[in-house]
Amino acid sequence: MAEIEKRDLVSIEDLSTDEILELFHHADAFRDNLLGWSDLCRGSIMATLFFEPSTRTRLSFESAMVRLGGGVITAADEKNTSRSKGESLADTVRVVGGSYADILVLRHPEDGSARVAARYARVPVINGGDGSHEHPTQTLCDLYTLWKEKGRLEGLEVVLCGDLRYSRTIHSFCYALARFKANIVTLPYPGFELPDYVLGRLQRDFHVRTAAASVADLPGIAGSHNAAAYLTASQPHQLALYTSLTPVEVNRIDAIYMTRAQLERHSGEDIKNYPRLSSKTLNAAAAKDARLMHPLPRVDEIDYELDSDPRSVYFRQAELGVPMRMALMAFLLGRIQLRSKPPAHNSAATGIDARSGLRCRNERCITNGEGVRYLVRDFRIRDDQANSVAMECAYCERDLQIRYLGHLSERWYGSLAPGVANSVPLDQRVWFESDTQAEAAGYSVRGG
Amino acid sequence: MAEIEKRDLVSIEDLSTDEILELFHHADAFRDNLLGWSDLCRGSIMATLFFEPSTRTRLSFESAMVRLGGGVITAADEKNTSRSKGESLADTVRVVGGSYADILVLRHPEDGSARVAARYARVPVINGGDGSHEHPTQTLCDLYTLWKEKGRLEGLEVVLCGDLRYSRTIHSFCYALARFKANIVTLPYPGFELPDYVLGRLQRDFHVRTAAASVADLPGIAGSHNAAAYLTASQPHQLALYTSLTPVEVNRIDAIYMTRAQLERHSGEDIKNYPRLSSKTLNAAAAKDARLMHPLPRVDEIDYELDSDPRSVYFRQAELGVPMRMALMAFLLGRIQLRSKPPAHNSAATGIDARSGLRCRNERCITNGEGVRYLVRDFRIRDDQANSVAMECAYCERDLQIRYLGHLSERWYGSLAPGVANSVPLDQRVWFESDTQAEAAGYSVRGG
Amino acid sequence: MAEIEKRDLVSIEDLSTDEILELFHHADAFRDNLLGWSDLCRGSIMATLFFEPSTRTRLSFESAMVRLGGGVITAADEKNTSRSKGESLADTVRVVGGSYADILVLRHPEDGSARVAARYARVPVINGGDGSHEHPTQTLCDLYTLWKEKGRLEGLEVVLCGDLRYSRTIHSFCYALARFKANIVTLPYPGFELPDYVLGRLQRDFHVRTAAASVADLPGIAGSHNAAAYLTASQPHQLALYTSLTPVEVNRIDAIYMTRAQLERHSGEDIKNYPRLSSKTLNAAAAKDARLMHPLPRVDEIDYELDSDPRSVYFRQAELGVPMRMALMAFLLGRIQLRSKPPAHNSAATGIDARSGLRCRNERCITNGEGVRYLVRDFRIRDDQANSVAMECAYCERDLQIRYLGHLSERWYGSLAPGVANSVPLDQRVWFESDTQAEAAGYSVRGG
Repeated sequence: MAEIEKRDLVSIEDLSTDEILELFHHADAFRDNLLGWSDLCRGSIMATLFFEPSTRTRLSFESAMVRLGGGVITAADEKNTSRSKGESLADTVRVVGGSYADILVLRHPEDGSARVAARYARVPVINGGDGSHEHPTQTLCDLYTLWKEKGRLEGLEVVLCGDLRYSRTIHSFCYALARFKANIVTLPYPGFELPDYVLGRLQRDFHVRTAAASVADLPGIAGSHNAAAYLTASQPHQLALYTSLTPVEVNRIDAIYMTRAQLERHSGEDIKNYPRLSSKTLNAAAAKDARLMHPLPRVDEIDYELDSDPRSVYFRQAELGVPMRMALMAFLLGRIQLRSKPPAHNSAATGIDARSGLRCRNERCITNGEGVRYLVRDFRIRDDQANSVAMECAYCERDLQIRYLGHLSERWYGSLAPGVANSVPLDQRVWFESDTQAEAAGYSVRGG
Repeated sequence: MAEIEKRDLVSIEDLSTDEILELFHHADAFRDNLLGWSDLCRGSIMATLFFEPSTRTRLSFESAMVRLGGGVITAADEKNTSRSKGESLADTVRVVGGSYADILVLRHPEDGSARVAARYARVPVINGGDGSHEHPTQTLCDLYTLWKEKGRLEGLEVVLCGDLRYSRTIHSFCYALARFKANIVTLPYPGFELPDYVLGRLQRDFHVRTAAASVADLPGIAGSHNAAAYLTASQPHQLALYTSLTPVEVNRIDAIYMTRAQLERHSGEDIKNYPRLSSKTLNAAAAKDARLMHPLPRVDEIDYELDSDPRSVYFRQAELGVPMRMALMAFLLGRIQLRSKPPAHNSAATGIDARSGLRCRNERCITNGEGVRYLVRDFRIRDDQANSVAMECAYCERDLQIRYLGHLSERWYGSLAPGVANSVPLDQRVWFESDTQAEAAGYSVRGG
Repeated sequence: MAEIEKRDLVSIEDLSTDEILELFHHADAFRDNLLGWSDLCRGSIMATLFFEPSTRTRLSFESAMVRLGGGVITAADEKNTSRSKGESLADTVRVVGGSYADILVLRHPEDGSARVAARYARVPVINGGDGSHEHPTQTLCDLYTLWKEKGRLEGLEVVLCGDLRYSRTIHSFCYALARFKANIVTLPYPGFELPDYVLGRLQRDFHVRTAAASVADLPGIAGSHNAAAYLTASQPHQLALYTSLTPVEVNRIDAIYMTRAQLERHSGEDIKNYPRLSSKTLNAAAAKDARLMHPLPRVDEIDYELDSDPRSVYFRQAELGVPMRMALMAFLLGRIQLRSKPPAHNSAATGIDARSGLRCRNERCITNGEGVRYLVRDFRIRDDQANSVAMECAYCERDLQIRYLGHLSERWYGSLAPGVANSVPLDQRVWFESDTQAEAAGYSVRGG
């Protein structure tokens, strides 16, 4: 009997669109009778490995597992772990995923750490947040909430507001909204715009087009509307609408997704005028049927007076996290089966290894952090063109623009002009971002 | 079908006297077969939210829930929680009490925090200790121990010894002893006397009378007997005995309740001569049938030599905590029903809101702490007399003496002379402690 | 019906050799179907009391208990416990072992602490590591791994490498290997040799003989081979082989047990050239069939390249920890019975009490630490000879050499010459290490 390959959830793209929708229906069943499933995962153990503080996420997972009848073991505080004796993440997950637990949930401050865990652990790994990279279960819960509130995802107008730069929640959510063909309106606090690599990936992988946006007045999000942008996955023939000089006018808002400033991921930035939503915001005509979402915890971004507004769904959002996570874990543990096909794109596959001389440019990437002593650097080709190759780190998925190609045994390198690649056998190709990098690695320019 | 209102245990007064006695009998059944109830609360989840360290209380609750077959999720360390990102307690309990857990146990450093949790959470809340306010499950366990040891509570002579000022355990215990008509002898360490607001409440709500006491010699409780007081809930015709100039003589002691100095709640006080009980203490004739109790942990207040004395019941007291908490949780989760009536006095009810201009004078009250940004201040009238009204904060239950009444829309105020209140319609009444407070709020003296 | 005496696992010697082998077979059954035992310990609760950080050991125990269907309550961080209020370990285990839990697992920084816990708790206590004393469940897992890999233990050649001084794991392992008649080759990092008291106990209790060893070249363990020693439990007629001037040549290695430097237990030592195993080490002819073991976490002692070598069994070692601990706990909880006899030697028995005037010389012993205020010092006679008596502390098992005997009521003392002991009645004997100690205790030399 062939062993079934284990599934992980490191990135929201590890689940296909159909699988996600199918999981929503399972989540509905769990939610309808939250206390009735205590035999489904009996005997199974989930380990929560949290190298960053987070009550909300950890308790939500633990509740989900206990409601499924499974057991929980927890390492919630970095100071309490073997890491203070210098153990690698790879070793930790090999041990804990050996016989201790049947599924792992990891939260870790370094980008790409969840992929490392998934590669080394024998059991399914769920990313509970890895640095600024992704937080896919939060995204599943957000999508599930939106889907339940609005009955669909396609064509929704979703405003993202506040800190769009450091919030991994926002990044995962953007990719997912694009995939489900919702339109995104970004209203960042100045200095906290969506990073270029997120925009790049939205364009490359999801064919999202960007236009300037003009948003109907939303009091409380002061100063932000200047930078409003409209991101849409609409088909080309509709897109013409958005490429004129006139910005896209947004007159109907289906959801406002608010975030707190992720102060723990940056410093020094001034957040004096950070947006603060009040009943005035929801009184705007465009927000008549909007849902107000927030991943929580909130600080001061949403007035307490809004808590009783039926359009405020942030507590419902948290509540739906448990049945959603129950569905996900029951699936990964093989206790429920999905009929839908898994994603064609396999984000777990390895690509081009360290021999290439490349180094991830993301300083928060685990390959530049705790993994530096044992990880083989690994890159995937995203886009292969005549004069340059777009790659991404297989761990943190940050882009890298390749402009030079070298020959491993002959020790020469040259610009990526058309045809150059073909002159080097596959197993001899070495990639460089710059000539400096090539020279530093001991390569000389071809014919130089 | 009408939904049954949830019950909380914030104050020991949230349970009626009959309910408490009925819970004792349930606790007996749990204790007789500690390992035999693992199906009673199957599927239910308890969340322990501990914002102050406490192994003892937390483990006792967790053990009780596990013995009932339920699940446990734990946030045991403030630093590990979303509060470090600035989340309010109200938000935390709304999320955790949303779908994560079916019952919450809270320990929190601020007085009144448990009432806040009970108001915002959808599920039952148990107060595991809120600042210096109350710790009602400790009181239940103490009463249960005393009841089992002595077969009754009424008429017992209970000596309270050590730190009576900062020990919330002692405060809850006093109210409960008064309710069950036990007599209290206070032997505080100098400077650690029972606070006036506790005495006030004992007199007002439980009709307790106070007299000086003369206690038979109890070696080890040096220096304390000078300040001995006798608190009794006896009927008026008996009370005459205690109001003579001669202090009440206490010759039979049923229990000595010893406490450690709550050093974490104060500072600088000298505890060099803090009482220390030894076998000499129990050798005193009056203590012949006494039971020696202590909420634990002890530091040095009780000599280790006393551990083997059959009258030392402090470890039994801890042991009984588990079956007692099992009974309480099974009741709050609706798995066992009580035939007794709930208390007539509803301490969960809201009273007079912030509009009154009042502010709780207890600086440790949550309305002056983390709740200041979202809580509506709330006061209850305790005693309504001609020239003054006694109120208490609906959160921390601290007293407030009202001497001025104002008119909301007409912006005047005046002394609470007889008849003044009637001249102001109910929905226009604003209360003040002092004229300064009224002036600061923008009110002018009537006719001034 | 006579109550069955509870069993503890404080020292590996608390289990007989036959019991250990029988537990291995039970562990095999648990391992074959890790998820199939969730009814065996239903209703029972394990408390993990960890006063030192350790993810690995704690999670392994918790996983084992959950897989047995039992419940877990955890106090994992000293700062979170009542100890910060000054509670004694004895009080903690009496409370937690009262009604909270049915079995306790303790990790504690002081030597002998686990014996204290075992004496005061009403329920079985497992030592999860007490200072530098013992860590017997790690030893059980190590033995179990070796036994599974090699099919036997007797006659195996086991190389111990690295920090043999501060690693309690190594100490317990040595005693056990000696008991199972395996041969030990010590290759310590200079300054980290096996302590004299461990060697002494190996010689005294297990009749182990020591010889110099010459080990076939093992690259990576640089500098260590100079100090190689061979410890064998072989019978006298074979021993002649090892007592010649020529050191024992070790040409076949069955296992290399590597340890990290226990930096938290010492300071200042230079570990610049600490051994580091790589594929070169395993390429040595003598290591052809060796198994590479490590208690984990590793720091840099084993190259990551070795992880894929089939002889590297350190992750399997960790994996086997769960079924091994399941077997142990099911046994201690009375859910499985062993047919084998318990050890004849009862290491839990009390010996000669404090009256003797003796004080344990181990400054890390709990009798000199937190127990000083309540523990009765306690010593056992190990070896009784004409001029001296070898004793050991009944808590931390450290040796004490007694050279003087005193008379309690007559207040004299004298050297332990032959016959002196007989002149003092048993209940009047007082023991001293030195005349200074005797004089300090107020005794005068006999006839002096």
